[in-house]
Amino acid sequence: MLSKVKIKLIKSLADKKNRLSEGLFLAEGNKLVKEIFESSFTVQTLIATHEFIETHILKPGCEIILATQEEIDKASLLKTPQQSIALIQIPAPVKEVNLKNQLTLCLDDLQDPGNLGTIVRLADWFGIRQIICSENTVDIYNPKAVQASMGAICRVDLLYTDLKYFLEKALSENIKIYGAFHDGMNIYKADLSQEAIVILGNEGNGISMAHNRYIGERIGIPNFSSSSARTESLNVSVASAVICSEFKRRTMF
Amino acid sequence: MLSKVKIKLIKSLADKKNRLSEGLFLAEGNKLVKEIFESSFTVQTLIATHEFIETHILKPGCEIILATQEEIDKASLLKTPQQSIALIQIPAPVKEVNLKNQLTLCLDDLQDPGNLGTIVRLADWFGIRQIICSENTVDIYNPKAVQASMGAICRVDLLYTDLKYFLEKALSENIKIYGAFHDGMNIYKADLSQEAIVILGNEGNGISMAHNRYIGERIGIPNFSSSSARTESLNVSVASAVICSEFKRRTMF
Repeated sequence: MLSKVKIKLIKSLADKKNRLSEGLFLAEGNKLVKEIFESSFTVQTLIATHEFIETHILKPGCEIILATQEEIDKASLLKTPQQSIALIQIPAPVKEVNLKNQLTLCLDDLQDPGNLGTIVRLADWFGIRQIICSENTVDIYNPKAVQASMGAICRVDLLYTDLKYFLEKALSENIKIYGAFHDGMNIYKADLSQEAIVILGNEGNGISMAHNRYIGERIGIPNFSSSSARTESLNVSVASAVICSEFKRRTMF
Repeated sequence: MLSKVKIKLIKSLADKKNRLSEGLFLAEGNKLVKEIFESSFTVQTLIATHEFIETHILKPGCEIILATQEEIDKASLLKTPQQSIALIQIPAPVKEVNLKNQLTLCLDDLQDPGNLGTIVRLADWFGIRQIICSENTVDIYNPKAVQASMGAICRVDLLYTDLKYFLEKALSENIKIYGAFHDGMNIYKADLSQEAIVILGNEGNGISMAHNRYIGERIGIPNFSSSSARTESLNVSVASAVICSEFKRRTMF
């Protein structure tokens, strides 16, 4: 049976301060929970229906609470609750990354958790192993970010840090730094180094002025609309996808 | 003053059946409302704060309701309400499209309004003028789709139709039909015709079996992850972006 205390705990994990004080985050949905179980994350508690528990291989050492669908519906933060909710230990934060011989994404104050999760998911698809986030970027353990990542948070390292300090260090290591801008150089025609950082900016304000100076090349996705009335920008996760695609395409030929 | 009746009307437009019976859809947010005013849509009612009305050029002939921020907060469907809400006449449905000399997207039972709006927005960016939707694809006048489109619904035609009939007709006109699949042919290496239809499938189930037979070429975005545990799929709007980018890139060289 799912106690009121547990339901309250689940709901409370929507807030970052509660996630930090509990050291826990939430993953919901059968596919995602299954992925989490197969990853290196430590599941503290699984809340699931009889049917879910019967049909899934569960890691030893985690508390299992058998719940009815009605109880899960009550506890869930999803619009369409499924049959399982996992409470997972937040792992120790990533402290260091290696910038050599790989592409690294860098997010400058990204605010929307859905965008962040989507970017983590597509980064994993494109073989990108690490994402550097400014300290004000939305928390990856936000339930919406976890859901949108579709399990890719198990495989992509996220480092939250002071971007100024980080970019200075990257420059000193001769890592090329690109920034994504609406009016940047046509990415399809730009020289793209495979050992590089690509900075993507905040949804409304783009890349902050303070970080502009570290950017070696401004790149952009050309607008193909011939009309004067046209969409002024792409969603940041969509722009990230196109940029990652173009970088990685180059490695194929 | 914003009446209770009007607030009830606004809230009711979250549901398709009410949109159809009222012949109205909703757009919120200052940037979007401004775009709608500049488009060919007919705004029936604008609900806005004094400040918004003072600083925007408004089309003649629409009812204007001066509202306080508190009233707008009460009526809004957004999490972060802004200073304006527009009630807009649903235009006559698109009845025909011309498939010659252009790229057309085709959505097979897409369910998420955010994904649909995002695809409309990126289609506009990539100069794609029309999207064909199966009859069970989510309604473009769903408020979340309208918001995610960021005004691009003013510029991209959406035709809801029986896909089977539509694809048969396209084939008879010798239009090339591509379908997006996880295991499709590497899009970066595929021949891409610029006079074509690209079918994108439902978020969970992909392209329906019934439409498979019309597809001339199965294309896909290769997974660049070298790990055996990896993301199994891309979000459909992200996949659409990468596919549109690759088609359009080819026109540049």
